[in-house]
Order: sequence, then structure tokens, then C-alpha cells
Amino acid sequence: MIDVHEAHQLILATTPVLGSESVPFLDALGRVLARDIVATEDTPGADISTKDGFALHHASLQRASAQAPVFLKIIGESAAGRPCGAAVAAGEAVRIMAGGMVPEGANAVVGLEFATEDQGYVVCTSAPKRGSSVRLRGALLKKGEVVFRAGSVIGPSEVGVLASLRRAYVPVHRKPLVAIVTTGDELTDFHEPVLPWKTMSSNLYSLAALVMEAGAVPLCIGIVKDELKTLQAHLGEALRADVLITSGGMSKGRYDLVRETFASLGMDMNLSTIFGKPGKPAIFGKIGDRLVFGLPGSPPAAMLSFAQFITPTLRKMMGHSQVSPPPAAHGRQEADGGGLLLLNAMFNRGRAAMPGEDRASLIPAKMPSP
Amino acid sequence: MIDVHEAHQLILATTPVLGSESVPFLDALGRVLARDIVATEDTPGADISTKDGFALHHASLQRASAQAPVFLKIIGESAAGRPCGAAVAAGEAVRIMAGGMVPEGANAVVGLEFATEDQGYVVCTSAPKRGSSVRLRGALLKKGEVVFRAGSVIGPSEVGVLASLRRAYVPVHRKPLVAIVTTGDELTDFHEPVLPWKTMSSNLYSLAALVMEAGAVPLCIGIVKDELKTLQAHLGEALRADVLITSGGMSKGRYDLVRETFASLGMDMNLSTIFGKPGKPAIFGKIGDRLVFGLPGSPPAAMLSFAQFITPTLRKMMGHSQVSPPPAAHGRQEADGGGLLLLNAMFNRGRAAMPGEDRASLIPAKMPSP
Repeated sequence: MIDVHEAHQLILATTPVLGSESVPFLDALGRVLARDIVATEDTPGADISTKDGFALHHASLQRASAQAPVFLKIIGESAAGRPCGAAVAAGEAVRIMAGGMVPEGANAVVGLEFATEDQGYVVCTSAPKRGSSVRLRGALLKKGEVVFRAGSVIGPSEVGVLASLRRAYVPVHRKPLVAIVTTGDELTDFHEPVLPWKTMSSNLYSLAALVMEAGAVPLCIGIVKDELKTLQAHLGEALRADVLITSGGMSKGRYDLVRETFASLGMDMNLSTIFGKPGKPAIFGKIGDRLVFGLPGSPPAAMLSFAQFITPTLRKMMGHSQVSPPPAAHGRQEADGGGLLLLNAMFNRGRAAMPGEDRASLIPAKMPSP
Repeated sequence: MIDVHEAHQLILATTPVLGSESVPFLDALGRVLARDIVATEDTPGADISTKDGFALHHASLQRASAQAPVFLKIIGESAAGRPCGAAVAAGEAVRIMAGGMVPEGANAVVGLEFATEDQGYVVCTSAPKRGSSVRLRGALLKKGEVVFRAGSVIGPSEVGVLASLRRAYVPVHRKPLVAIVTTGDELTDFHEPVLPWKTMSSNLYSLAALVMEAGAVPLCIGIVKDELKTLQAHLGEALRADVLITSGGMSKGRYDLVRETFASLGMDMNLSTIFGKPGKPAIFGKIGDRLVFGLPGSPPAAMLSFAQFITPTLRKMMGHSQVSPPPAAHGRQEADGGGLLLLNAMFNRGRAAMPGEDRASLIPAKMPSP
């Protein structure tokens, strides 16, 4: 048995980064780019005015000032999305809006603070430099330029840039499929009869929720009986997933067959890793290229092992360089419903419940916002 | 125009909490309970052993000790999920595993450290108290007890507890449907011809991504032309959603019709709120019971306004008492792809791009993890 830190390092070192798939760019939210994104066109695609005013050639206003205003003839208008067809010659100008295309022959824009319209002419009181108030074609992105490197995480602003680049589909690292099996003859599920000595297989669902929170895809196989052949059949089937997680069957009791099953399915037990607190061990190993985690059956211990070892593993598989997840997914830690505390109380077998015990201390009362 | 803090308060005060819907409990992950969850059965459903050992009546061992061991006859076995049919009489015991049901007639369990099996008998060297190593029926949850209060956020551990309670469906606050409309004649979309003076409507998608990150449901209406009748038709249609967001048409230019459209659709402009930086104002008001946000067209300004005002609004609608979202959704802030910086550079019209400017400083190079 090795310590938590060693186990963490060993598991991550064994974990592969999954290959890529092409997904609609909005579905890529929160996922990691598997290849660089390259601009296929210049941005902007044309010289664009950055303000409302008049487009002209800077030479036309070389000597303009408040004392010596210069009159230019207005030959047309260029609004955002509605370019002016005409070319601007010396002594001419085109009325232009922010976002409008700078017409041929113009190379500068004079803003309204230095330009007043008067009977078909514009009176200019300032001499702009070449390129003044113009965003040049390709100034922001040049065709062929790398916009986002492989390994970047796609957030809402990246989504906006991908739209600007007309990247309808993007290559991201695949999400691992994570099979979940719970074992234990005392376990029961929704569709089964309610018997007082049976316990709902809550791990099947809380582990699925943890898989979902990590951004991966759960495959809830279900409860598998504590029998070698049944375990072999179901766990063998579950190995079609990228990761297999079992809970239960890790203690020293007489019905503990999970490790035997792992070995019979091809796990090299000499290369596998056993870690966790005494009495609640977890096991990690590989069967072929599948990652296999055997977690304890106790729900708090299983969830803790998941958060410590499996969440970082799944994040690495999805291409994240930061394998520790961000805190407070879904605002959960700020406003926990009290579930973990309750699970701890429900399943901490080391501590017998006392008759008449005050349950209020175990369930924090949460009120909705006023 | 009011300041950001005032606007925040005013908008939240106007925002309703949406009603509830019943969803599969695993789909409730990250959502907020709309009603209390009450236990419909005792948990555990029977007296359960907390360790491997022997179940018996404590009176049978009243004088047992290491010096004076007591022999009890083993009459059966109770494993987890496989109860023993027989009742335990004085002088008898049942072999029991952790999680096994304590048989009728027994009220205590002696662990293996004080109990050794020998030819059909168990030799006990300790006198247990009544209830020793037994989790009594209902000790953790009594039928009728409130388990989670309305307003609790469902995380993975709550999912586990809900499974234990056999709550296949749970009532949670509804997700708002958020219609998104972008306006501006310069805007274009994926399916339209590529023209150099047109700009992709990135806001349509980055705002949809922000809606998704907040946990709500985007309804991308699309780009709507800068014409009163067209705007009225599409915005009127979009008001079937809970929230309507427009971007663009907020500046003082001649084609700005969004506010006129809002007024014609029934927004009381005297009760509406204008906020945001000079030159990039945003508007908030109501049309009927729909919340309406008019955001500026500049992508960074639109995204900033969304994060400041709309994310908290959506969270309140979904029942969150903590309306500020958790930081670093999707690990984005830790490992941002550089999109926001790039959007800022791409659309900050106050700053003209300089020819030959070093773009490297705008796009942080991100490498995948080694």
C-alpha cells in the first residue's frame, strides 16, 4: 500500500490523453482544443472605420486646421455592412459609420469632432495621419496565423472568436466513457422490491454525478452480484469503456471477489496500486489500455477517492493541463445541500447510531433565498 | 443612467424565481430544490450490523469475559442482503457480516476480536451493551423527516442521498429560456456569403455560451436587420422566452432602433434602466413579465455586461441564493484560451490597430500538458 501522493503521481503518469473528435464549436464549451486553430482569412477582411465621421485621403487635409478648415465634397456613404461603391479622389470624402468599410482611395477617417456636414460638403478642421481611425485589413488576425494553441480551454470568449473565424467545428480531446459497477449482495436499485435489509446502490448514481461534473460520460452498468462468473461477465463487458470504476468488494470479508475478477480479466496485480486508508483500500490498475479503479463500498470513501484520484485522471484524459478541477463546480461548495455530511452519517460503519441522537446536527437546514 | 451597483440591485429586485419542474434526480445535478425532500421510509429500514461478528441478545453474555468466556450455539448466518430467517433465543447467536440485518431476538453484535468460532459454537470473551455495533432502524432518517430543504443545491453527494431515498424524480426550479438576438447590418452568419465588409455575429454564440455556463437554456434567434418592422416581428416572437437579450443598436448612431422597438413592444421606458460606461450603455426593462436586456454590440462590453448583470439574474431565476457564480467554471480562468483578450483587441473600436503591431502579446501561446 502506498500513500496518497505517490498514488496520485503514479496514476497520472499512467493516464493517457485521449484522441480528438470534431464537435460543433458551441458544444466545445469547457473542452480542450486538440489542435491549433489557424485563421483562414484576414480579420478584419477589409479596412474598417473605427468611428463615425468621414473617410478621405489624408493628403486632402494636409493643411487643415481650426483656423484653416478644408471643404471636401461628400460623394457617398459607407455604413456598417453597406459599403460605398464609389472611390474617393483628392478633395472628396465619404460619410462613414463605425464599422463601415473605408472606400477605395481613402486611407483615414476624421471623426465628427473635427468634421461638420454643410450642403453636400464636409468642413474639416484637423489634418489626420495616414491610417487614422482605420482598422486595417488583417490588423487583428492574418491569414495563416495561429489563433488558439492546442491545449487551450474553450470558454465563452473563445466561442465568440471561433464564430468570428467561421470555425463551425473544432477538434477537441474526446470525453472518456466511464463504466460504473457497484457490487454487494445488500445493494438494490429503483426497479427492485423494497426489502428492509437491502440498501439502495447510491454509489451508482453519486459516482455518475461525479463523472458528469468532471465533464466525462458515465455508463451506469448497475449492481453486479458477488459471484466470480457474474462479475467476470459484467466487468468484461464494461471494459468497452475507457475507464472502469467498481465500488465495493474491497474489504477482507469472505465475499470479496473484485480483485480476483480483475486478475482473471488480465490485470497484472504486481503492477497495480493499492492505496487509501486502512480498512478502506482502493485499487488502481490497467486491463489492456483500460484504466480500472476499484473503490471501497462506503459512499463517503468512494466519493473521496474519486475526487482525489479519478477527477484528475479524467481531466488529464480530456487534455486539461490543470488536472485539479476548479473549486465549487455548480456553486456546490458554497451552498451544499448537506448531502456529504448525511452520506457520511449514513454509511460510516465505524460509528453506530445512538437511539434518540439529535439528527439536526447532521442535516444543515437550508432556506431558499428570500 | 445609474451606476453598476444600483443597476445590479434594481435588476435583481425585479427578477422572479421561476417555478418548479420534476426532473430525473441525476439531471438535477447543479440545480436547486424547489420543495423540501422528505424521507418516506426509515433509514436504515432494519437494524443493521456495523461490523463482522455475531448477533445475539446482550443478556446471553452478561457475565462473559476473557477469564470466563461464554459459548453460544450458532444457528445461522446473516450476510449483507441475505438475512437469516431464524430468531435468536437465549444462548444462541447468528454469524453476521457488516451490513447484514440483525435477526429477530438479537439486539447486539460482538466483533471478531471478542468472538471465535469453534465447532458450531462461538466463544465470546466480552459482554456487549444493548445496541452495541448495531445501527437501529430509522437511526439515520426517520419516515417523515426533512432530508433536504427547498433551496438546496444538488451535488454528487445529494444525488447519492436521493438515490438512497428512492427519489427517482425531484422538484427543481425551472431553467430560464433565454432568447438571443443580434442586430447590425454589418453582421453575418455561417450560412451567408463571405463579404469583406461584413463581421461574423460572434455575440450570438458567445452570449449563448454564457447562458449555457450559467445553467440556463439559450434560444439563438439570430441576426435581425436594423429595421423597425423586422425588429418588432422578431423581438415580439422572441418574447416567448423568459429572458430576451439583444446586442447592438445601443449607440447614438442613426440606425439605432432597438430602444424604439422595445418601447413599441410595451416596455415602459420610464421604468427601464440604462447603465454601463458612457458610449457603451446597456438597457434593462420588462415587457409584460419578460426580462429584457439590451446590450452593446461590442463583444467585450456585451460579455462583461452579461457576467455582471445577467448571470446573477439567471441564477436567481433558477433558485440559487448565491447569485454570484462560482469562479472558474470549466477551469476557464485558470487556462483561458486567450479569447477574451483577443475579442477585446478585435472589437475595441476606441483603439485603432497599428500596422505591423506585434500580435504575439495579444494571443498567449498555450501548450498542451507534456
